[in-house]
Amino acid sequence: MQLGMIGLGRMGGNIVRRLLRDGHTAVVYDRDPKAVEALASEGATAASSLEDFAAKLEAPRTAWVMLPAGQITEETVTALGGLLSADDCIIDGGNSFYQDDVRRARDLDAKGIHYVDVGTSGGVWGLERGYCMMIGGHKEAVDRLDPIFRTLAPGIGEIPRTPGRDGRDPRAEQGYIHAGPSGAGHFVKMIHNGIEYGLMQAYAEGFDILRHANAPDIPEARRFDLNLGDIAEVWRRGSVVSSWLLDLTASALAGDERLEGFSGYVEDSGEGRWTINAAIEEAVPATVLSSALYRRFRSREDESYADKLLSAMRQGFGGHKEPPRRGPAP
Amino acid sequence: MQLGMIGLGRMGGNIVRRLLRDGHTAVVYDRDPKAVEALASEGATAASSLEDFAAKLEAPRTAWVMLPAGQITEETVTALGGLLSADDCIIDGGNSFYQDDVRRARDLDAKGIHYVDVGTSGGVWGLERGYCMMIGGHKEAVDRLDPIFRTLAPGIGEIPRTPGRDGRDPRAEQGYIHAGPSGAGHFVKMIHNGIEYGLMQAYAEGFDILRHANAPDIPEARRFDLNLGDIAEVWRRGSVVSSWLLDLTASALAGDERLEGFSGYVEDSGEGRWTINAAIEEAVPATVLSSALYRRFRSREDESYADKLLSAMRQGFGGHKEPPRRGPAP
Amino acid sequence: MQLGMIGLGRMGGNIVRRLLRDGHTAVVYDRDPKAVEALASEGATAASSLEDFAAKLEAPRTAWVMLPAGQITEETVTALGGLLSADDCIIDGGNSFYQDDVRRARDLDAKGIHYVDVGTSGGVWGLERGYCMMIGGHKEAVDRLDPIFRTLAPGIGEIPRTPGRDGRDPRAEQGYIHAGPSGAGHFVKMIHNGIEYGLMQAYAEGFDILRHANAPDIPEARRFDLNLGDIAEVWRRGSVVSSWLLDLTASALAGDERLEGFSGYVEDSGEGRWTINAAIEEAVPATVLSSALYRRFRSREDESYADKLLSAMRQGFGGHKEPPRRGPAP
Amino acid sequence: MQLGMIGLGRMGGNIVRRLLRDGHTAVVYDRDPKAVEALASEGATAASSLEDFAAKLEAPRTAWVMLPAGQITEETVTALGGLLSADDCIIDGGNSFYQDDVRRARDLDAKGIHYVDVGTSGGVWGLERGYCMMIGGHKEAVDRLDPIFRTLAPGIGEIPRTPGRDGRDPRAEQGYIHAGPSGAGHFVKMIHNGIEYGLMQAYAEGFDILRHANAPDIPEARRFDLNLGDIAEVWRRGSVVSSWLLDLTASALAGDERLEGFSGYVEDSGEGRWTINAAIEEAVPATVLSSALYRRFRSREDESYADKLLSAMRQGFGGHKEPPRRGPAP
Repeated sequence: MQLGMIGLGRMGGNIVRRLLRDGHTAVVYDRDPKAVEALASEGATAASSLEDFAAKLEAPRTAWVMLPAGQITEETVTALGGLLSADDCIIDGGNSFYQDDVRRARDLDAKGIHYVDVGTSGGVWGLERGYCMMIGGHKEAVDRLDPIFRTLAPGIGEIPRTPGRDGRDPRAEQGYIHAGPSGAGHFVKMIHNGIEYGLMQAYAEGFDILRHANAPDIPEARRFDLNLGDIAEVWRRGSVVSSWLLDLTASALAGDERLEGFSGYVEDSGEGRWTINAAIEEAVPATVLSSALYRRFRSREDESYADKLLSAMRQGFGGHKEPPRRGPAP
Repeated sequence: MQLGMIGLGRMGGNIVRRLLRDGHTAVVYDRDPKAVEALASEGATAASSLEDFAAKLEAPRTAWVMLPAGQITEETVTALGGLLSADDCIIDGGNSFYQDDVRRARDLDAKGIHYVDVGTSGGVWGLERGYCMMIGGHKEAVDRLDPIFRTLAPGIGEIPRTPGRDGRDPRAEQGYIHAGPSGAGHFVKMIHNGIEYGLMQAYAEGFDILRHANAPDIPEARRFDLNLGDIAEVWRRGSVVSSWLLDLTASALAGDERLEGFSGYVEDSGEGRWTINAAIEEAVPATVLSSALYRRFRSREDESYADKLLSAMRQGFGGHKEPPRRGPAP
Repeated sequence: MQLGMIGLGRMGGNIVRRLLRDGHTAVVYDRDPKAVEALASEGATAASSLEDFAAKLEAPRTAWVMLPAGQITEETVTALGGLLSADDCIIDGGNSFYQDDVRRARDLDAKGIHYVDVGTSGGVWGLERGYCMMIGGHKEAVDRLDPIFRTLAPGIGEIPRTPGRDGRDPRAEQGYIHAGPSGAGHFVKMIHNGIEYGLMQAYAEGFDILRHANAPDIPEARRFDLNLGDIAEVWRRGSVVSSWLLDLTASALAGDERLEGFSGYVEDSGEGRWTINAAIEEAVPATVLSSALYRRFRSREDESYADKLLSAMRQGFGGHKEPPRRGPAP
Repeated sequence: MQLGMIGLGRMGGNIVRRLLRDGHTAVVYDRDPKAVEALASEGATAASSLEDFAAKLEAPRTAWVMLPAGQITEETVTALGGLLSADDCIIDGGNSFYQDDVRRARDLDAKGIHYVDVGTSGGVWGLERGYCMMIGGHKEAVDRLDPIFRTLAPGIGEIPRTPGRDGRDPRAEQGYIHAGPSGAGHFVKMIHNGIEYGLMQAYAEGFDILRHANAPDIPEARRFDLNLGDIAEVWRRGSVVSSWLLDLTASALAGDERLEGFSGYVEDSGEGRWTINAAIEEAVPATVLSSALYRRFRSREDESYADKLLSAMRQGFGGHKEPPRRGPAP
């Protein structure tokens, strides 16, 4: 079927490519004309403006917005709301905040326009592996878009089936779900990312302990000089902690076990934060997920005011003088 | 080659079975004669006592001890130390504390007996999938035992190779590593379990937030009634959080999404604790791994003295009266 | 000077009493006529409705709202906004969310009405000890109200002066500060409560460890049966951890060291949650303050879904069967 | 009564001074003859060696060891064990690990020598304010030393009495307790320090959030530029979070609110670590106390391997490139 795509970055572009490969058609638009040309050369229909984009879509239209979360997505959805008509559908496939979805869906509902939020995981690997999708919106719209989702999803592939799923929604096994009303898709994706932070931090701490197993303070008889790359590799093979994140870890450590190409400065995107806000609203103790987020915050501080205050108190009650910092190794 | 196995529980028994299937031979001993008989009927040589066990092994002997960590393992290793001779080898395949390994290896070294510690992951799935093994001990002994380890390990199977590993120790890809001197095997396995706790807690918290997404306190417009089984399933398909633990989660939730068969009382074994002790000794901040351990401690308390003290303070400064507990749902 | 007070619960009533004692006058209103009568009998002027309340105040009027945070405060401030005039002042002395203050102040500014938010700590002890106040609002209004704040504040009393404060705002030593524009008062009070949660949890955990120092698992030679009441008391005397919260702890433990009157169910009010949300917005790692909040959440769960999922995974990979819960001791 | 003191650093020297002032006598020894001379000039009896020290004490002798925890304390206690006789008493007033006390007491018991462990809090303020002491050992020895402890303790002073303590051990109100058998004193002091870490971290995080309340990311309408020195001061006056640590914080912030004299590198001593080890042995969830310790560990890392691994994974699944570090502000 036909899909309109706005935003032809790596994600948007590859989604279009995966659709074209499977016989779908696409109208594409991006602020950058070169990005439009590139996909047009691969078979998509180029649009030169939002208006042109809307005009080239066949009713009922489907406009997938794949832009950075925040103002640009907001403005684009608003503009589309003015250009589209009842029974058309706007998909936000970016990383929007689920409460924005709820609000937008309510506003567009008044015009009869469907709003569908699609949280996608799989990132740069999606073109090849398929996209894992969590979808929120009206059943009617989600069902209508099913051919699109089926093509984009990874499918069952070689991953073993989970026992006991007979009679359950078969889409989950294909790699996409209709999670609930508008907002539910991004809500589930948000928690996915919250979990991701926790998993990553668990590995990071474990390998940190392994790496310091030969610290000079430790009695020599139980000091170990471990090969972290081999450890990551062996855990991929039948251990309880095997995972895709461990696969990536093994790759990184095979390349440079000391990870010297990295500064230790770690960004976070909104989802990890929103996950904690949601947990607090629900009164769910999210100890590990919060700790993981905070470690990222801390990673970006060279000096912490909190730490300085600790030193100030220590000097106050005990006369302790902290040594100066050494700074990162050259 | 020939292996002697002491302790024919699920782990010890299945290790012997996997070896027999691959053409190795085994002498087996257990306090429970029925366990010995069972394996004898599958082709192993039965031993009626530790002495008989030692006598039936061909030099250089290999005695694998597969018993619960702690006193029984300690006593058995000590007894074997008296029965075996120089160049023989004692393997502790259980979950011993790595510092005990270091001590035992030093003591047995004096007699020329090799002590090899093998941390294994894979649990009840090992017979079928193979055992992921982390091995500590003398190179000489570990090399000699290689045929055993090669049979027990999962092998490469269908798991994709990690790019960049050419020229590295090929054993890791087969599912076993020689981690270092005695103690290193159990040290690495200990950290493995510490990570496991963290990973499990990350999933547990994420699903807890998903489950409470329809809590009555939340404004109705953004309250979601989510299908947790489908969510677990879809994340297995191309998402960043896919893992074996997620596979197990999907299985459990396919069976009973409300998990009513579980009380919420969660045990911990020693490894999670030792991991934290090791992190503290190394001054490595193990925030997530500690949090995960503590949540298990907390799961086993019906009432917490710490919580009562909070209530007492709240009453002291604010006159707050806490409501009574409701108790678990019937 | 004259103050109008709306809401004559423990806090509002005692604030009026402390003002009357010091020669101020008060107009008082509460939905409950008995509360109004009680304070009228102590010298306040009774008002029978919000309109009557507004009419009995002399211009420029000062209306202190001391009601539970949330809808009732919101409605009352809105109603007062309709009854009062330019240069009048509305004080919210409750526990409102600081972002609500910012919004209300902006709205009232349009009418020339001052909005002052006062975070107060000291709770049930305020009448006797005075109220510690953190104030947000226009300088003009805060200065005009100074006689009120000076009376309500504890004053220097016997607490030693902090060295190095000469030349600094003397109000802080008296027990009140003008923290900044509207919202700043409740913001500072919010963080105060966030810290309070952290401090309480630190004591709670420490005493929890002391209480379990004679746990049966611990080798007998280092098992201690400690007198927690005496420990709390001795720490009040010259130790680094002395504090008012410790004073309260010592009182509680002097009464019943086992704290049997408490169920271990611990409420939280909004401030602890908002503190975490603020920390996340600022990207400040608030590890301890979050942990403290989460322990309260956890205290209110008899069974945790997260814990059940851990058990389900443990059963999945290791065949572990968790024991049933025992339930709280009778 | 007479006390022998070994180790005349700030703590040991001031303890002797406080005793001399109250009419006690002291024999003093230190490796540094100048330290001995200094105290001799204040009225103490100088000893030139451990043997001389032992000879100058009257039976039953009391030898207080006030040295850094670890090897030097261990050696000194061992040497004293050889020089003293039955019914003599060795006090370890340093920060020894309580399990070392248990062992030493057992060894010295065999010779009839009493071993008393005294955990002291109050640090550099002890000479003036008195020392808060937590004591472990035989009742007989602790009672005999009571005149010493009574002089060193702060006494009731101006601190209000805790209601409900009539009939309880009056020593706690004086500022010292007999906590239990050998080891109990240092155990209680250890937990004291564990709590101290938690309290400090709670304040540090709270002030960190206050300090970043004007971060550029925050919408301007709710951005606050707060005076942290005034906030610390006002909380000393009637608030729930008042404490001695807050007094010290107020002093530090009165001097330099930006704390520019501190690098943010924070040491930890053994007690915080041992507290966590004890909590783990008891299966008590010490979430806040652990977090506080870990923040200190983290404060000493300029770059964290754990953080680098997070970046490596992020690059692996999403192609994310972390920005370089800026380094601490000049």
